[in-house]
Amino acid sequence: MLEVLAFATPNSVKVPIALEEMKLDYRLVPVNLRQGEQKTEAFRAMNPNAKVPVLIDRSPALAEGDVVLSESSAILVYLAEKTGQLLPKDAAHRGKVFEQLFFHASGLSPAFLQAFQVAMQSSPQPEAQARASAEVDRVLSVINHNLEHRLYVAGDTYSIADIAHFGWIWRHQAIGASLEKFPSVRRWYDDISARPAVVTAIAKTMALAQ
Amino acid sequence: MLEVLAFATPNSVKVPIALEEMKLDYRLVPVNLRQGEQKTEAFRAMNPNAKVPVLIDRSPALAEGDVVLSESSAILVYLAEKTGQLLPKDAAHRGKVFEQLFFHASGLSPAFLQAFQVAMQSSPQPEAQARASAEVDRVLSVINHNLEHRLYVAGDTYSIADIAHFGWIWRHQAIGASLEKFPSVRRWYDDISARPAVVTAIAKTMALAQ
Repeated sequence: MLEVLAFATPNSVKVPIALEEMKLDYRLVPVNLRQGEQKTEAFRAMNPNAKVPVLIDRSPALAEGDVVLSESSAILVYLAEKTGQLLPKDAAHRGKVFEQLFFHASGLSPAFLQAFQVAMQSSPQPEAQARASAEVDRVLSVINHNLEHRLYVAGDTYSIADIAHFGWIWRHQAIGASLEKFPSVRRWYDDISARPAVVTAIAKTMALAQ
Repeated sequence: MLEVLAFATPNSVKVPIALEEMKLDYRLVPVNLRQGEQKTEAFRAMNPNAKVPVLIDRSPALAEGDVVLSESSAILVYLAEKTGQLLPKDAAHRGKVFEQLFFHASGLSPAFLQAFQVAMQSSPQPEAQARASAEVDRVLSVINHNLEHRLYVAGDTYSIADIAHFGWIWRHQAIGASLEKFPSVRRWYDDISARPAVVTAIAKTMALAQ
């Protein structure tokens, strides 16, 4: 059985999306960030970085016991390799999926997080807001460029790189970003949002905060 | 032949370290960031995100032409899968390598970059400096914790995850960070610094800025 320790967050939602797409059985276990549950000793024993999501794979087939993994993109890679789904095998396309996963982790995700933190402040500084918003637009323009000539972010097939980017872009309204300037991102976003696995995963993830 | 477009930067140095460890032939091509060469149209055609390093694999064996890849960690994964080196095959250990690569991209790398940008300002704000420095210490303490009971960041064997973390930690003095509070990081850092492949790669990378 697969357990996912998660909350209603952009990084968390990626994991149930992948699990629904792969038709795997799993159980979502809420970690209430509002109550600081990710900072408990028990949670830190699983992830010393004190962040959700965390995957626990208790499959008896695992030779060395349970696998406990943090970092949403590392979990996506683990699940893709476990099932042989959503990660191409040929070197060129596979390389592009990893390129987008790492661009997500080092570029898009810090940009969106920064904009979110600025937006959450009681009296945001206009300068900090402008800087955060410029970086969000910059990373969205990079993705828009990628999507101008291909259906998905790493090529013409849907992959875990789309799921990673979608996780944060799903929250673009919360940081005051608009997709209207990025028509290829808009087309891609609407396409992914309509996938039944994505609809189901979002509903299950949002329910964690209720 | 493998070409690496790079400069004397923490993200660049990771790629020659991996190539030296793997004993692959390669050519370093300087992209002078001081002159903004990463923002030219020719460079952006390879990486719309306008950052070094970029790998070009011109091996004739590639069915669909040259592979052009950005994102240092994606390049490390590509080279590891190409050679079968520095990335374990069993799911549990492999998962830990990816966890550390993504913790590097989304945690350590933005923390060090932020601290570097604050340190470069002509009159850094003490508050911004304290915040940046606290996050650097936090990520180093996470790695220190990992290294207390294992030789390398993702287990007892050296992997591309060590190369990724080393790339930025190599520059800890430039951001005013000290490793003395993190004895396990210090032990690991001294061990990696002494590897002949690392010494050679650092010398070649530094020469790009001369």
